Amino acid sequence: MEQALKSQTVKLHGHWASSYSHRVQLALHLKGVKYEYIEEDLENKSPSLLSCNPVYKKVPVLVHGDCPIAESLVILKYVDEVWKANPIMPVDDPYERAMISFWCHFVDDKLGKSFGDVLSSSGEGQAEAIEEFGKNLMYLEQKLAENGTQFFGGEKIGMLDIVIGCGTYWLAAFEELLGVKLIDPNLFPHFIAWKQRFIEVEQVKEVIPPAAKLMGYAKKIYKNILGA
Amino acid sequence: MEQALKSQTVKLHGHWASSYSHRVQLALHLKGVKYEYIEEDLENKSPSLLSCNPVYKKVPVLVHGDCPIAESLVILKYVDEVWKANPIMPVDDPYERAMISFWCHFVDDKLGKSFGDVLSSSGEGQAEAIEEFGKNLMYLEQKLAENGTQFFGGEKIGMLDIVIGCGTYWLAAFEELLGVKLIDPNLFPHFIAWKQRFIEVEQVKEVIPPAAKLMGYAKKIYKNILGA
Repeated sequence: MEQALKSQTVKLHGHWASSYSHRVQLALHLKGVKYEYIEEDLENKSPSLLSCNPVYKKVPVLVHGDCPIAESLVILKYVDEVWKANPIMPVDDPYERAMISFWCHFVDDKLGKSFGDVLSSSGEGQAEAIEEFGKNLMYLEQKLAENGTQFFGGEKIGMLDIVIGCGTYWLAAFEELLGVKLIDPNLFPHFIAWKQRFIEVEQVKEVIPPAAKLMGYAKKIYKNILGA
Repeated sequence: MEQALKSQTVKLHGHWASSYSHRVQLALHLKGVKYEYIEEDLENKSPSLLSCNPVYKKVPVLVHGDCPIAESLVILKYVDEVWKANPIMPVDDPYERAMISFWCHFVDDKLGKSFGDVLSSSGEGQAEAIEEFGKNLMYLEQKLAENGTQFFGGEKIGMLDIVIGCGTYWLAAFEELLGVKLIDPNLFPHFIAWKQRFIEVEQVKEVIPPAAKLMGYAKKIYKNILGA
């Protein structure tokens, strides 16, 4: 079954600035999977994307043979199960797998929401949102300190590195745009060192667009948030 | 490793009315896993729960040996990986697993939120929320119609049945409380037939409290929502 699955075509509907698309691209690059990349215009999504993901109508969508899969965390696990080389999830220990799943969900849920609150607030409300965001990020700082490894996934990047790492580019862009400090180097030394290691990974460089280009897009998004 | 894991003690911090706790209890009952159940007072949570789940401070938390696991979907997958008898996730096909993960996430995310919107709205806003909820539930109706099986998991209940099924008791309670019809039998014949099959499963009966008791609790929750 594994060989039959691997021989199918792989297509990825993505968007150049979407950190969720970058997650999937990064996993595919880490595993050396060849794929056709289809850039979506988010203002005018392709009929193919809409039919593949009628529920959320969002990128990324991976289409493997005739089978579409949506939601980046679901796609990452699928990719890891089909192309087993260079695993991104812990292989042997169900508890370690559960912990990675828990923290990936935490990033998309609690950490992501508190970041959104920073963007959509101002003044005292924003100060509170930044504090809450820092509290959430501190869990990841502590985790790195406790692990004592290069990456969340050990000595190589794994699923949690991918999930957090692809979002850190937005953190940097919005720190500059908002003129706020979200990651104080005195409070988050392990996180900052980890981030530096992450951006130096060859496949990360292949996947993440240049900072200046992302910054231009971040400005556009932030204008929309303020105008909302 | 599997045997060593299985010999560890199993404790579950839950709450008698929590559908998320019921999910985990149901999975453990389906697999015949013995566990110690610890009922939490949600107004005064135990130090043990708070130390096991500092991030969310919520039930359910499964403690296996010394290892705590939070978030019901994460726990369900862990349970399925450690106690492999009577699998609740598709065993052979990564794509089927991805689809079940996608729909479980959909239930907690999109369907759950639209149910919350029904509860917290009134008048025209509530009519819109009910329509949106129906649109979301229709995906599950269609899925049952297409599958042509007894359950979402095939001929036996699986992860998606557990995740949806444990919530349907609240649907019924709130339909009565709000005096609205959320599930029109003409529109959702497969879903209603599935629900009937679900509540007749022996282990479901063991786990879900009597309807009248849940109704009393639903009244209390709804009063809080209206008062908020």
